[in-house]
Parts: sequence; structure tokens; C-alpha cells
Amino acid sequence: MKRYEALADDIATAIRQGLLRPGDRLPSVRQTSANRHVSPSTVQEAYYLLESRGLVTARPRSGHYVAPDAAALPLTPQQASRPDDGPRPVAVSELVFEILGSAMDREVVPLGSAFPSPLLYPLERLGRAVAAGALDLDPWTTVDDLTPGNAALRQQIALRYLIDGTRIAVDELVVTNGAMEALNLCLAAVCRPGDAVIVEAPCFYACLQVLERLGLHAVEVATDPRAGIDLDALDAAILRHRPAACWVMTRFQNPLGASMDEAKAQALVALATRHRLPLLEDDVYAELYFDNRRPSSAKRYDREGWVMHCGSFSKSLAPGYRIGWVAPGRFLKAVARAKLTTSLSTSMPAQLGIARFLQRGSYERHLRALRLALRHNRDAYIEAVCRLFPHGTRVSRPSGGYFLWVELPVGVDALALQRRAMAAGTSLAPGPMFSASRAFGHCLRINFGHPLTTRVETALQRIGRDARR
Amino acid sequence: MKRYEALADDIATAIRQGLLRPGDRLPSVRQTSANRHVSPSTVQEAYYLLESRGLVTARPRSGHYVAPDAAALPLTPQQASRPDDGPRPVAVSELVFEILGSAMDREVVPLGSAFPSPLLYPLERLGRAVAAGALDLDPWTTVDDLTPGNAALRQQIALRYLIDGTRIAVDELVVTNGAMEALNLCLAAVCRPGDAVIVEAPCFYACLQVLERLGLHAVEVATDPRAGIDLDALDAAILRHRPAACWVMTRFQNPLGASMDEAKAQALVALATRHRLPLLEDDVYAELYFDNRRPSSAKRYDREGWVMHCGSFSKSLAPGYRIGWVAPGRFLKAVARAKLTTSLSTSMPAQLGIARFLQRGSYERHLRALRLALRHNRDAYIEAVCRLFPHGTRVSRPSGGYFLWVELPVGVDALALQRRAMAAGTSLAPGPMFSASRAFGHCLRINFGHPLTTRVETALQRIGRDARR
Repeated sequence: MKRYEALADDIATAIRQGLLRPGDRLPSVRQTSANRHVSPSTVQEAYYLLESRGLVTARPRSGHYVAPDAAALPLTPQQASRPDDGPRPVAVSELVFEILGSAMDREVVPLGSAFPSPLLYPLERLGRAVAAGALDLDPWTTVDDLTPGNAALRQQIALRYLIDGTRIAVDELVVTNGAMEALNLCLAAVCRPGDAVIVEAPCFYACLQVLERLGLHAVEVATDPRAGIDLDALDAAILRHRPAACWVMTRFQNPLGASMDEAKAQALVALATRHRLPLLEDDVYAELYFDNRRPSSAKRYDREGWVMHCGSFSKSLAPGYRIGWVAPGRFLKAVARAKLTTSLSTSMPAQLGIARFLQRGSYERHLRALRLALRHNRDAYIEAVCRLFPHGTRVSRPSGGYFLWVELPVGVDALALQRRAMAAGTSLAPGPMFSASRAFGHCLRINFGHPLTTRVETALQRIGRDARR
Repeated sequence: MKRYEALADDIATAIRQGLLRPGDRLPSVRQTSANRHVSPSTVQEAYYLLESRGLVTARPRSGHYVAPDAAALPLTPQQASRPDDGPRPVAVSELVFEILGSAMDREVVPLGSAFPSPLLYPLERLGRAVAAGALDLDPWTTVDDLTPGNAALRQQIALRYLIDGTRIAVDELVVTNGAMEALNLCLAAVCRPGDAVIVEAPCFYACLQVLERLGLHAVEVATDPRAGIDLDALDAAILRHRPAACWVMTRFQNPLGASMDEAKAQALVALATRHRLPLLEDDVYAELYFDNRRPSSAKRYDREGWVMHCGSFSKSLAPGYRIGWVAPGRFLKAVARAKLTTSLSTSMPAQLGIARFLQRGSYERHLRALRLALRHNRDAYIEAVCRLFPHGTRVSRPSGGYFLWVELPVGVDALALQRRAMAAGTSLAPGPMFSASRAFGHCLRINFGHPLTTRVETALQRIGRDARR
């Protein structure tokens, strides 16, 4: 545990024990720095961490105060996972298909879904942009834009990178059929069957399914529920297993919600560069941040091109349009070629529509509304889970995305919970879906991308009751 | 050579030698049947073959006549290829990328292109259908239609199958990012790296590239320039190499233009079924037939589900939209799952637009115009090639699609021709692109999907001159 984390934990304990009460002012940064013999920047980091956990609020030119409802806030997961570290063939796909297959019905309460409510998206305004683009299509672009994708769209994507502090040239981008294809192309570019690939523990189940389909072996690396993959463990795993690639989510990791700060993202890139290890950065939730300070991508610090950065509009703007992209760094040529022999190019009407929507400046406005809605949902879902789930349940408090990671008391069987919930018309994503070793048996991922209606509340209540048995 | 082929060749020789002259009436079917001691249906087949080669025309209720320009018609390729038959790792991708990479410019004369002119497609009318679809999008379909694709589109595709005489249920179809993705998914469903896959000699270069990327080995099987893959050679190759799949084009094969008749398509399916061999039927030119009698797909005779039939709108309606599909028979579940972990689903605006266009009944009208234009181009290009290429050049006369297969006199180096042509601003597709063993060194594939302008004629003239040296 780092110094600022230890400090933050001490303060959190004081709040929980009632030594600090809602509305109390924390000692100033200077004061605490002197008292605890740590640097002012360490104190700053600790206060920021407490803020991001919702325990403390900052008032400009006044200081930091214990939040009104701080004492009632749930426990958050605190331990990084400790996977055993052998590379293993993956065989999780059947379980995942089984669970997803039963959850595709509109009538099901979608707590296990991977998608937020489609009603959060400006599908009609976007439809108008698609209409304008389709009617204005230069026939020759169907040939010109063949593999890398529409030039106007790539330009808009390059602009989004700039806003995020990263310089990517238009011709370093390949537009793909969603981030899923982008990640597949990246693996195809750098891996051969039987190779080992590093993944987080837990990680997004589709990552495991792709490894399984391609005959790749997973090396699971310890991952902290707040700060993401453990760099020391990563370093050791690279030395020991000589992996062909590392698949990582630096922001709002699915399922944990973990994010890296700038220093850590920078250290991650340095590590990958030192080992000449291709880093697949799956960054599909990048635009869905809730705080003013957005976590950092690894791509931002990628000087030598080892980071293959994959993004998408599926979660931020256009579900069902299947428009993603990749900035593959030094692997550009290999990725573009894999694209050519995999699906040739990406559907033109969706590309043109999204390009127009972004050109019109409508994206930023939509994103602001989307972030607010998701942030609101997050707080409501956390409150409900704390109220309705058994004592000792730990819940993440992600600063972006739309997933909660819920650690139930050890002994609760999440797979059994999922089966009972499904029988009662509610989907759930149990922990073992997210692990090549089927770990996290007492954990759940809960989607908060849908409004917390009475129906959802009733479903959560039922799950809480089942978990208590 | 089959009986009807021998008979047709005898008559063709008689025409070339002037024994039968333009306008002469052929003996009646009954008469020839008696003279040659063959069945009337054999004579019918022979006359049909002569018709499809343009040597003979049929007049209703009158009989068959030697075509006016029959004597001037070019030699057509006559020998089936005779590849050596070892499975071999494929390494053709670099050559293909090199040749394609230089040909993407609008200014290049596109004789080597894989695409017909985009101006042949109703992109504006289609754009209106896309616009209507995008504005009318039910947000929940982005979840409902997730993997198999939009239900309305699958229904329209099932109707096209019915018109072609094949019964396919809506839920046997998976919509894909073009046929290229469909074919990739099929291979992913039935092959593991190192497996052998049967291909035609010559075959579509992208097929070879996919095998190369997936680490599969190619077994090339003799293929007749008119009738397609040799079934005896196929049978022998299956017994000898135990392939995991066979990739075949039954109609307007790329690059030969070969097509199967019903009996042969039926025999092919029986063969695959007997060997329990997955048959990937790449049928992307199915709608581009020129004669009233359309050749038969293999899928039509597939009773036990061994045929994975792949189609696309890219060549017939909507270039750049990237909408294809597969009817994977008994491999439906495996293909759908591969789709889920490869690209999740297919872009919604393009699917909805095409579904609407078909629902409105606009497709058939467009296809009639497209077929006429391509047929017209075919005749013009054949005439020009015969006039401008060296004596002894053989040219295919496909009854559909938009490719000519040109066999130059042995000794002409097609790769050298391609390089010279490219330097002069014309793309070409030399024979070795279509062969894992880099055979067909004196052959070219010529795209006739663009109007034969003076510019194209000049380019052909230059190539003819180069070939003579």
C-alpha cells in the first residue's frame, strides 16, 4: 500500500468510527503534512482519494470536509487479487455464453447486462446525421476509404485524442467494427496460438473468450480494485512467462471500475517499453468519467509505439453502430493488414453518420448529459446495494463507466445467486465469468446503466435476501 | 471430359474450321442423339454449353443456329489446372498486399481491381432507405438483434434464397461484416491452426490470405475453367489429406468465372456429406448472372447441413456497406459464437437501410440493370482483349460476375506485365496472386466492372504490346 493510500485509510477509519463526523473540516494539507511527516503532495493525493470515494468533499478556498453521508458509505474492496500465476488455456466461454444467452430478453432486469440503457443515447439526432451522410455519399469513397476507414471520421477521432492530451495522427488510426474487432486485430497482429497473454484478475470476460478462441493462454496478474493492475506483479509475470502481449484497461476497468493515475499509467508504459511488450489498451469507457479530473490513458505516454490503443463509440454515443478504432502504434501495418483479410473495411453509413455528428459539435453536449445520468445512477445503485445486501458486502465506487463490483461475504456463491436471479427474471454477472481460474466466486458485477426503478430495486432486494441464506 | 463436353468441343471445332458457318442450323437434338449414340439430354447439355460460350444461339420453336460472330470468338481456356497436391503453408499475402496497395488510387485504370464501378449502384436510393431506417430506429433493437443481425433483414435474405430455390429459415442466418467476415467465422468454427483446407486452383487471393493469417495449410485441387473444381480430384484430396474444410465458389468463380450445373453442385454436396467435410461456399456473385438459366448453388442440395453458405450485398447492391451473411447449416451455433467474440454484431444503420430497400421491392429492378451493364461490359472487354492481346491468348467467357480470366501464351510473365502496367498507371491481377504455389505465371484476371472507355482501351493496348515482347 502506498503512503497516500495508508493515510487515506486512516482517515476513512476515523470517519467510520465517528472520530470525524459529517461536516467536520479536515486538517489543512500543510498541517497534516507536518503531523504525519509526509510530503504535501502525498496528503493531496490522499485527500483526492477520499474525495473519489465520496467520503470527503472539497470546498474551493476553504478546505476539505467530511461528506454529509460519509459514515453510511459502504465498504469498498481493498485487497488486490492474488491469482496463481501459471499460463493456462482458457475455458470460460461456455459459461459466459450460457449466462449471456439467457439474458437477452427485454423483459429481464438487466443487472448482468454489458450495455447501458439504449435510451441514454441520442439515436434520433444521430439518425439525422446518418441520413445526411448516406444521401451525400461520394460513391468513390467506398473504394478510397477501404481499409483504414473514412478520413473525416478518423480526423474527428484524432481531435478527441487531442482533447484527452494525446497526439495521434489521422493515418495512425484504423476504424473497426467496434472495439471488439480492434482488440481481435491487435492480438492477431502480435500473437500466435499457444502464446501467453497477460490479463487482469478479474478481467472482462470477452477478453477471455477471445483468448480461448485464438488458442492463447492467459496469465492472470494481481489487480487492485481501485488502482488497477499491480505493476510489480506484472513485471514479475513478464520475466517469468515471456508473454506475447498484455491486455489491460487503464480507465474504469471492467469489472472492477479501477483507474490509473498519471504516474502509474506512465510507469506502465515504461515497463512495457522496457520489455518490448505489446500493450493492448482497451479504453472503451474513456469518455464516461464522472469527476473533473479524468484518469490517464497509457497511450498518452507511449513514445515508442508499444501501446495499441482501442476505443469505441458503442458505449459513449452509438450502440449498435459498431464503430470502434485502434491506434496501433508500431503495429499499424500488421493491424491494417489483419483488418483487410478479416472484414476488409468498416460499414460506411455508420462511419459517415458519426463523423457528421461529431463535426456538428453535438458530441460534447450529449456526453455531459450521459455522464450526469450515469453518475446519478451510480450513487443510487450503491445506496441500494448497501441497504439491501448482507452486512459485510463491499462495493466499488468507480469514477466512470457503469459497473459496480460487489464483493459479497465470503461463502456466498455468486453462480448460485445468478441462477436463482435468472429464474426470477433478473440477469447477473457472477465473478467467475471474469476469471480464467474461475475465481471471485463470491463477487458480482452489477450494471448501473439503467435507471433504478422499483422493478430493479425489487430485484436487488431479492438477490440480497438470497445472498443472506 | 464428360460426354456433353466432348460433343460441344467437336461442334466448336467444326465452327472454327468453317465446316459450320454463321447462321447454319445445327441438327436437331433428336437427330444428333441418334447420330452420336448419346441421350437427348446429353445433346441438350452440349447445346446449352455452346450457347453459354456464345457460339450458338437458340431460337424458340426453331432450333439452334451458329452465332453470327462465332468464328471470330476467342479461344477459351480448356484445361483444368493440375496443381501438385501437398498441403502447404501459405505465403502469398505479401505479394497480394504489394499489388493491391499500389492500386487504390482513383486515377489508376482498375483492371486489377476487385470492385466494379461504384457508379453501377443505386447509392442515392439506398441512402434514402438508410435515412428512413436510421430515423425510425427502435433503440432496443440495438440489444435485441445483437448477434444474428436485424430480423427484418434476415427475413429479406431468406426470401432471396427462396427465389433461388433454396429454403433457409430466418434463424439459420447470421448477418456479418461482409462475406469476408462470414468466411473467416466459418473457418474459425471448423479449423484449428495447422489444419489443411482445400481450395481451388486458382482461387480468390483473399482466401489464401485468410489461410495464411490463421496458420492453415492449403491443398490446391484441379479446377476446370468452365465447370469449376474437379470432383474426382477433390475426392482423392480428401482421402489423402483429411482436410478440415473445403472453400469453394460454385458460381462465377473468382478468378476463372467457372460455374457448376445442377448435377455437379448436387454431386459436390453428396461428396462433402459422405466425407462429413464442412463446405464453405463463397457465393458473393450469385445475383450477377447474365443468362436466364442461373447456375446452381451447392446450398440448395444441402440436406444435412455440411454447407456453410456465404453471401453479400457488397457486389450486388451496396459497396462499402459491408453487409454479408452466412447460412452455416449444422455449424450455426459455433459460427454465431465466433461472431459474438469477433465483432459482437453488425452495424445497424446499414442493415436497416438494406432491409428497407429490399422491402420496397427496389432490389430486383436494380439487379436487372446491373446484370445488363456487366454483360455488355463482358462482351466489349472480350472483344478488346482478343483484338489487342497476342495471338494464342485464351479468354474466359463467364456467364456472370465481372472478371475475365486471360491465359497469355506460355512464357509471358504476368508479374512483369503487372509491374510495367502499374508504372504506367494501370492495375492488373497477375495469376500467381491466386495460387498458394504461385502457379498461373502467364495468366491475368481482368476486371470488366468498369465501362470500356478509351483510357481502358489504351491501357489494354499497352499491355497487349508488352505481352508480345
